[in-house]
Amino acid sequence: MTFRIIFIVLDGLGDRPCKELYGETPLEAASTPFMDYLAREGICGFHVPIDPGIVVESGPAHFELFGYHPFREFYPGRGVLEALGIGAKLEKGDIALRVNFATIKDGKIMDRRAGRIEDVSVFEKDLTMEIDGVQFILKAGVEHRAALIIRGSGLSSEIEGNDPHKTGRKPLKIKPKTRNPDAVKTAKLLQKYIDKAAGILSTHDVNREREKKGLPPANYLLVRGAGEYRSAESFRERYDLKACCIAGAGLYKGVARYFGMDVLNVRGASGTKNTDVDAKILAAKNALKNYDFIFLHVKATDLFGHDGDAIGKKEFIERFDKALSKIYGVDGVIVVTGDHSTPCSLMDHSGDDVPLLIHGEGVRADNCFRFGERDCHCGLLSRIHAKDVIHEVLNLIGEERIVE
Amino acid sequence: MTFRIIFIVLDGLGDRPCKELYGETPLEAASTPFMDYLAREGICGFHVPIDPGIVVESGPAHFELFGYHPFREFYPGRGVLEALGIGAKLEKGDIALRVNFATIKDGKIMDRRAGRIEDVSVFEKDLTMEIDGVQFILKAGVEHRAALIIRGSGLSSEIEGNDPHKTGRKPLKIKPKTRNPDAVKTAKLLQKYIDKAAGILSTHDVNREREKKGLPPANYLLVRGAGEYRSAESFRERYDLKACCIAGAGLYKGVARYFGMDVLNVRGASGTKNTDVDAKILAAKNALKNYDFIFLHVKATDLFGHDGDAIGKKEFIERFDKALSKIYGVDGVIVVTGDHSTPCSLMDHSGDDVPLLIHGEGVRADNCFRFGERDCHCGLLSRIHAKDVIHEVLNLIGEERIVE
Repeated sequence: MTFRIIFIVLDGLGDRPCKELYGETPLEAASTPFMDYLAREGICGFHVPIDPGIVVESGPAHFELFGYHPFREFYPGRGVLEALGIGAKLEKGDIALRVNFATIKDGKIMDRRAGRIEDVSVFEKDLTMEIDGVQFILKAGVEHRAALIIRGSGLSSEIEGNDPHKTGRKPLKIKPKTRNPDAVKTAKLLQKYIDKAAGILSTHDVNREREKKGLPPANYLLVRGAGEYRSAESFRERYDLKACCIAGAGLYKGVARYFGMDVLNVRGASGTKNTDVDAKILAAKNALKNYDFIFLHVKATDLFGHDGDAIGKKEFIERFDKALSKIYGVDGVIVVTGDHSTPCSLMDHSGDDVPLLIHGEGVRADNCFRFGERDCHCGLLSRIHAKDVIHEVLNLIGEERIVE
Repeated sequence: MTFRIIFIVLDGLGDRPCKELYGETPLEAASTPFMDYLAREGICGFHVPIDPGIVVESGPAHFELFGYHPFREFYPGRGVLEALGIGAKLEKGDIALRVNFATIKDGKIMDRRAGRIEDVSVFEKDLTMEIDGVQFILKAGVEHRAALIIRGSGLSSEIEGNDPHKTGRKPLKIKPKTRNPDAVKTAKLLQKYIDKAAGILSTHDVNREREKKGLPPANYLLVRGAGEYRSAESFRERYDLKACCIAGAGLYKGVARYFGMDVLNVRGASGTKNTDVDAKILAAKNALKNYDFIFLHVKATDLFGHDGDAIGKKEFIERFDKALSKIYGVDGVIVVTGDHSTPCSLMDHSGDDVPLLIHGEGVRADNCFRFGERDCHCGLLSRIHAKDVIHEVLNLIGEERIVE
């Protein structure tokens, strides 16, 4: 009996029939001999991320997959997860937001990503300050991305962001979501900070240099996804599993850190369509020596879905299958699923069920011989809630707690 | 339309692919022409004892199967069910524990069952006493088994037992599970009782006699599974069904009595691998004259699972199928299922789904033609929660309450 688990999440995996694929989904159309082998020897089915038909973002979807219930337990919000993802150290009560460095001209947003500026860590020090006894800490991420941490007493995450998600518009004013005095205060202070930051950035050497080179200056902060940090029961405490994460995109590293997983840095794991899946699989294989649970996240499937690129999604899945086949023969339970569906025809998340396969010693093999949406219907797991997936896996390795 | 139901629970029935059976489960591999007939003409599926993947003990699993919810309603604990199983009369607030008569030497446990002593009823009177205004009542069961009832005011079942479940160790001290003063008091009194009982047993004539014969003396009480008794809504009140139970093992008789079922004594129904299944089936057939609902429990399947004996489990299922075929043609609904899975490969309970079949007049027959794990996947019942099984049956006989 093995106790090691490789838990693979292909973001936005689930799809719908695509015209470009003559009515098959990307997963159905893809040639995936290795995942078909896993399906044939394993048990398949679907998971429902929250409830049938309900659409969900990746953050809460991963909470459910890991057996944490964002809507019954505490959910810290996207800002906190992104901040943890870029390595920020948070304290209880901190408010955290996702930040984009943007380019503004005559009060209007010209570029929401400041020309995908390479490095914003040069601004960290200048944009970290205290306003009315409250600390504002800026922490740089990859390219134009950063996190803002607000630390002090009497704060609230019940505030709106200022990102209109479109160019040619003015940034929004920060508003409280409720009349809660803490929310009103936090919104007011945050607006003050953003205005101060805009002043600092407008005359910053780095931006003067960029303008000379004809590059868009990083002269405004767009913030969103405010959340409040509180520590959670760790994966080790909850399941007695030593867990690690292999991911490119920040959000998933943040989810992993939130549950106390070690985040392994893998060169080439970019969270983009060009991610080095071979490097990630190799890292997972190596991690089996030191960890009981390896969370392997791949973002590209979701990106192809958002772009409506069915052929691209199919071809990426084929590339992933080839890479995954390198773990053939490892002693462990392999789970392959998605966090939600991102149908190419919709170019957005949907509430469709997500294909799920579990391969490992002793599992009840079923009549599902290929890994695909229609095929998974023949799976014995049938249609379970995402929150139950981790328990199916723990049960398989004989580690589930007993109800007496 | 018939109103009679034979509800058969093959304990720990569900299993996983077994090497000894070339990748089939015992139920799949067994030749079961009669249950296959029931499956072919009936409706099949699976039930999930609590939630997907969650492992459960037999007590709460039976509560769920009977439509009582141990974690939402009251669950009296194993001690109470075992006490009821051996025929103890309980009053509201009584604390009951399962007792093993054991052999102790130099403070260490030599035999947890005192050589499976044949009859402990000889000790009943001497071990029934009052301590500090609280009554301790010992009630003998089969062989080394007994129940202890603690009756008085200000008691609590929030106490640990003293059975280390291993020989060569000292019995544990009775401890409260919480700081609740009632629990502290109950633990203290119970320890006092156990010490007194040990004194009485050490010089008891029956034990002196045993020692002379070279038999291990029954000189210590190992207690576990403390629970508090409160009456439950009976099967008759809840479902308007006159119910009886045919079982060998005490726990199941206790569950039945707890729900107000009559327990029928069947010679040869031992709750062991050698149980007389023919006698049990005959008794069930006869009981159809007087009862609407017959709960027939068979323990052997679980015992073979715990022993990892896949061949034995398969052969027992074949023996059971042959015996069951004697009810061919009876006018009633027949349910065959398990309470949980006990895979031979795990030698323990697991959280896997449990095969379920319902046969009776008017049932929607489906495409499941054999009774087995993989086969049941073709069943129309699909995957339901154990708590819903009784309602499917009541619906079939047209007796389910209407939600208006």
